[in-house]
Order: sequence, then structure tokens, then C-alpha cells
Amino acid sequence: MIPVQPDRFLENLHTLRQFGASGVGKGVVRPGFSDPDIAAREWLAAQYAEAGLTAQFDPVGSVWGLAEGPSLLIGSHSDSQPEGGWLDGALGVICGLELARAARESGGPAISAVSFQDEEGRFGVTTGSRIWSGATDLAAADGLEDVTGVTFADARARMRHLAGDFVDPARFTGFLECHIEQGPWLDEAGEAVGVVTDIVGIRDMRITFTGEQNHAGTTPMHRRKDPVQAMARFQGLIADRFRNVVTPQTVWTSGHVEVHPGSHSIVPGRCTFSMQWRDGEKDRLDRMEQIIRDAAGEVAEAGGFGLTTSDLIALEPVPMDAGMQAALAEAAEAVAPGRWRRMQSGALHDAASLARLMPVSMMFVPSIRGISHAFEEDTAEADLVAGLQVMARAVARMV
Amino acid sequence: MIPVQPDRFLENLHTLRQFGASGVGKGVVRPGFSDPDIAAREWLAAQYAEAGLTAQFDPVGSVWGLAEGPSLLIGSHSDSQPEGGWLDGALGVICGLELARAARESGGPAISAVSFQDEEGRFGVTTGSRIWSGATDLAAADGLEDVTGVTFADARARMRHLAGDFVDPARFTGFLECHIEQGPWLDEAGEAVGVVTDIVGIRDMRITFTGEQNHAGTTPMHRRKDPVQAMARFQGLIADRFRNVVTPQTVWTSGHVEVHPGSHSIVPGRCTFSMQWRDGEKDRLDRMEQIIRDAAGEVAEAGGFGLTTSDLIALEPVPMDAGMQAALAEAAEAVAPGRWRRMQSGALHDAASLARLMPVSMMFVPSIRGISHAFEEDTAEADLVAGLQVMARAVARMV
Repeated sequence: MIPVQPDRFLENLHTLRQFGASGVGKGVVRPGFSDPDIAAREWLAAQYAEAGLTAQFDPVGSVWGLAEGPSLLIGSHSDSQPEGGWLDGALGVICGLELARAARESGGPAISAVSFQDEEGRFGVTTGSRIWSGATDLAAADGLEDVTGVTFADARARMRHLAGDFVDPARFTGFLECHIEQGPWLDEAGEAVGVVTDIVGIRDMRITFTGEQNHAGTTPMHRRKDPVQAMARFQGLIADRFRNVVTPQTVWTSGHVEVHPGSHSIVPGRCTFSMQWRDGEKDRLDRMEQIIRDAAGEVAEAGGFGLTTSDLIALEPVPMDAGMQAALAEAAEAVAPGRWRRMQSGALHDAASLARLMPVSMMFVPSIRGISHAFEEDTAEADLVAGLQVMARAVARMV
Repeated sequence: MIPVQPDRFLENLHTLRQFGASGVGKGVVRPGFSDPDIAAREWLAAQYAEAGLTAQFDPVGSVWGLAEGPSLLIGSHSDSQPEGGWLDGALGVICGLELARAARESGGPAISAVSFQDEEGRFGVTTGSRIWSGATDLAAADGLEDVTGVTFADARARMRHLAGDFVDPARFTGFLECHIEQGPWLDEAGEAVGVVTDIVGIRDMRITFTGEQNHAGTTPMHRRKDPVQAMARFQGLIADRFRNVVTPQTVWTSGHVEVHPGSHSIVPGRCTFSMQWRDGEKDRLDRMEQIIRDAAGEVAEAGGFGLTTSDLIALEPVPMDAGMQAALAEAAEAVAPGRWRRMQSGALHDAASLARLMPVSMMFVPSIRGISHAFEEDTAEADLVAGLQVMARAVARMV
């Protein structure tokens, strides 16, 4: 077992949350390529160097602490959601730092550390790790825009003075990522650790109903084509039809809704909304897609609406490496006997990108009340330390 | 009958639509106090002067063409919706100009003309006429903000160099407003004129469901408090319960929907939407309010949502003057025999403000396919001219 130092680990976690601190609880506002994000990455590079690693930025803003020779890579991301918690990504990054440093101090196995850029998807999803793994082409990514119209090319130019080369993936024997669960299962069960079996697949698209913009006082109800009402009917319809298809882990969300022109006194002409669904099985994702397309088509047909859908983003489920899973399970049982489980990850993580290149595995610690992507996100410090100790034990069996 | 000149009237209508022309059909973008709105009002002032009237701006940007002595006031508004049509308001303003000019040229009755400011409600509803009529206090209005945060005080300061005093209402014997119907009834029936019996009452509020912002991948459906789903359920519930309460003329609309934080991968924490309903009877408006409040409360209770509602804006139904109605009906039958009807106005108009001060009346011409508050808004030129002729005939009986 690598002799990690829990106090140093917690102190570094709290230092990292000062970058972009929201002033609301422990929340952070540190989206990829923002000033606090870049400052946090410069601080991380200094920590890596102090730990005896070679610090290096790559051309897309991911920051690396490289051990010599072949090594196990441990890390996550230090960018946050526009309104994010202090642990989402940050926990895995500081775990990587502590494990790499403690291993080096104790003459243990070679461990490298990383914080990938823009996992939270200002420019897509898991942008930094997807480009590094080859899942996304750099030239194509440069044209992507955030919601305000800033391109990825312009955003990464803000870190040009720091950028080195891309790191050669061949130097790593595997990737290990610790993360908060971001869901309620461990917290509800009073468990300390989740050993991830696979990362669920995601389907994501935008749906637009086009009706007829008109005066809200003079247009009789029977003559209206109101796309907000179409969206409401669609939501009820799919919820009903999903019932016989989904599992308790399946989720679907319309988190973005845009109504045009958006005035009290105008029957809207257009409603665009996001439709995202996640599940561990490709087959179920496909069946849900069919239900969604059928329901939208029926609502449009019945009400005389125009219907358009964006291209579908499809990320397939990603299984975790069996050997690394076994090492995590053994360590979890040793550190928290009877207080751990195997589970899916409902969230996407950088590990999914890296599975293209090397064996990957993940473990979770509990999220209090299951809250994440919000300032209120938190985890008991005892659980954070237990997670670090599980990793310290498992790593010995991985290298 | 006042000898109006249809060609001059149509030419002026087309000239007015050049101010803020959208470049899409005949549409205009001329919201109150915008550059094109102010330019249009300066052009109108010049037309009033040329017609032999005394042109005057008041402190809130309404522009007047005043006849000497007691006079009938005819007009409407020349500001437009953010995406508006060329006739909404403009028709009544140019009718006023033509009737005042033609009456003066022919030694007819004294007619004054007006274009009220901000009827379309950048700062509330029928802002200019409500302040003039005393329905809204000027000092209070100065604090009102548009959706971008500009105050009414700052907006009207843009016209300070033009502003004169408020006009004394006592000089007017009544107010007559011609307007496009903005609904489909006349167009569907192939009729030329609507004599307005009353302007419907309006209730308007914002409803907010507050749920729990969370991760869209890791939060199980049974643990979610998703306010977009609450809004969708609410819409279905009220539509169902309204069935036994409403008439074919009753309308309700949620034209504005705002979802926070509005990301594909986040279960939203908050959904705020507008709820507006209109009907000719106060009693029915009250019954609908009760259904709305009950349904929102039940949805919130069942799903564990927070529920807040804004103050309710309540505008009561306004009856038109019986004598002026009779004059319009007689003129309509003379100009378009058998092709006119008495009808409610589902839209609010400046006439509703002026009813506090003097007898008021309104008449409608058809809107093609009932479309308004959109670039596509239009009316056949023959119907525009017929409307002008009905007014020219009716005015002789009003003064």
C-alpha cells in the first residue's frame, strides 16, 4: 500500500477550490479556459514539479505530471461546470497528485498524474481527453463554439504560452480515475465506495417544434399552433411509453428549453429543447430513440407542427478493465468491509475517452444527497480519505 | 362623410413602414424609443404640421396633432413589437392623420390625431396612453425596466429634446381607434369590418416551479424534482380543467419560458413561465385564476416543488361607448352591407386606457389568416380603404 498523507491530500483539495470559489458554500465557477481554470492548472503544474514529476501542458490545456519510464496514469479534470461543486473532477486530480507524490517519496511504483481540460463540455463533452485519445479531431474541434460563440481555437490560444507537445500514450500502462458518484445510491445505502463496472452510453439531440407565431389575445385556441404545448404533450407521451422499456438506472432529461420569441403576449412560433437519455445497454438506448422520434412525429402530425431534430450525439457504453476492477474490489473490501458495491457510472468521464488507448477503471465515493453540478455538492472528508486509501491499496496490484 | 383620399392614406402607410423595415415581407422592427421609432414619430409630427394641426410631443414620447378647440381624437400607436407587422397600430395612426387632414381641408369637424408611445409594452402595457390617462403613475413608470434592464426613465430621456407638456384631455370629446383585428374571425367569414363591443380583460402573471438542480446522468428519475416536467404537467392539467369554463373566445398562453441553468446535462433547478389569460367577463377570469392556482399548487405538492407566483396584473374588460358603436355600425352597413359584425377585442388597445377619460370606440379590419405580432401580418388594401371610409362616415355622426 502506498503511504499516502490524508492531511496533505485534503489541504490540496481545499486549496484547489479557492480557484474560482463561488462564495456560495464550497461551490466553484471554473469552466475550462476561464482565468481561474488556467490559474488552477498553473498551480497544479507547480505541485507536480514539487512532487518530482515532469510538469507539462499539452496543446489543448490538459496538464500532466509525468513519471519516468512506463507508469500508471491517475487523474481526472479540474475545470468545473458554470455552477459547479468543489469535488467534481478535482477529487480525482488531487488523488493523482497525492498517489504520484507518495509513491515517489516511498520508492513505490511509477505513477503519472493528469488534469484533462474541459471535461465539463464547454466545447462538447470531455473535450481534452477526447482529443488526446483521438476520439475527436483537433482541427475539427477548433471550430466548435461555446454558447457565447467563442471558438475552441480562441479558447485554447489563451494557454498558448504554456503549451508543450501532446504526451505519448504508449508510456502509460493504464488509467485510474477516482470521482464523486454524483448520484444518491452510495449515500442512501451508507456505503463508502463504488467500483465502476461500466460507463453508461449517452444519446443527445435537440428537438424543435415550429408552430405559428401569433397574437396571444386574438388567436382562438382552436386555431393555435403553440409549440410550448407540443413540447408539454411530448414530455407526457414519452414518460408514459418509456415505462415498459427502462430500468431504475435509465434516465432522460430536457435540461435546455428555448421559446421564441418568448413574450407574454405572443403565441410562440418555435420551441427548441434538448433531449438526452442514458443507459448501460446500447439496445435500450436505441429503443428509447425510436420512442422519442415516434412521439415527436405524432405530436407534430396531430397539431400541424413543423418538426426538426439535430444530429444525434451517440456515446456507447464503455466497460471497465476486469483486472483493475478486481484490484479495486479487493481494496474496497479491505478498507470498508461490506460497505462498497459494484455499480454503473451514469455520468460520462474522461476514463471513457481513455478506454480507446489503454485499460481503464474508475471508483466512486458518495455524494451527499446525490447532489452534483451545483454549489451544494459535497462529500464527508472521511469518505474522501477512504477513497484515497482504496486507491493506494489497489494501485499496488495494478502495476 | 369626410372626403378622405385613399391613395394619400395608403402612401403614408407605406412610408411609415420604411421606418424599421425588417427586410422580411412588410415586417417592421420599431419598438418604442428605438431609433426607427423616434424617426417615425418625427416624420409623423411633420405630417401633422403639414395637415394644419399643431404638432406636439408629450413627456413620454407620444406625438399629437392638435386641432383648435374641442375635437374628436383619432389615433393609435406607431411603435411595434420586437418582430412586428406593418399595420398593428400604424393603421390607426395613419387613419387619424388622413381623417384630421381631410376634415380640415373640407371645412369638416375638428379632429385631432395621436400616436401613443410604447403600446406594445416594452415597459408594461399601453405605456404611453396609460400614463397620459392616469392609469399608471409617471414616477412609478420611470423605474420600470425592459428585458435588457433599460429603465423607462432612460428610454424617454432619448426623446427629451422633443418633449413638450402633456396634452389636456378636456379638449377631446371622444376617442376613436381603427385597428387590424389580429385574429382570424373577419378573414374567415369574408367580412370587411368589426365594430368592437368591448375590450376583453387580461390576467397576467409569472409562475415559478423550483426543483433540485442535479446531474442528468446520475440522478435517478424517482429522485428528481425536475421543474420542466412540472410545467408540462401543469399545462395539461389546466387545459383539461378549463374545458367546462371557457368560451370559444377565451384564450390562455405561456409565451415565455425560462429554464435554469439550461444545460443538456443538468436536471434544471428552476422553471419560470408566463401565464396569461383573457376573456370578456370578469367572473370567468376569476374562475380561471382559481383553476390555475389550484393546478399549480397540486403539481407542486405532488412533486415536492417550490412554487412562487408574481403579482397578478389584472386589466378589467372595457365596454365601448354605445353611441359611437351605433355610428360605426351604421357606417359599416353603408360601406360594406352585410359584411360586418359586432365583436370583442381580444387584444388590449390604447382605447382601454382612454376609456377612463372620455367615450371611446374601436373598429377592426380583417387580418389575413389572423396573423399579427409577426412579420407576415397583412391586410388587403381594399379592406384598409374600406375601413377608412367607414370611419369617414361614422365620424360625421360622432361630432
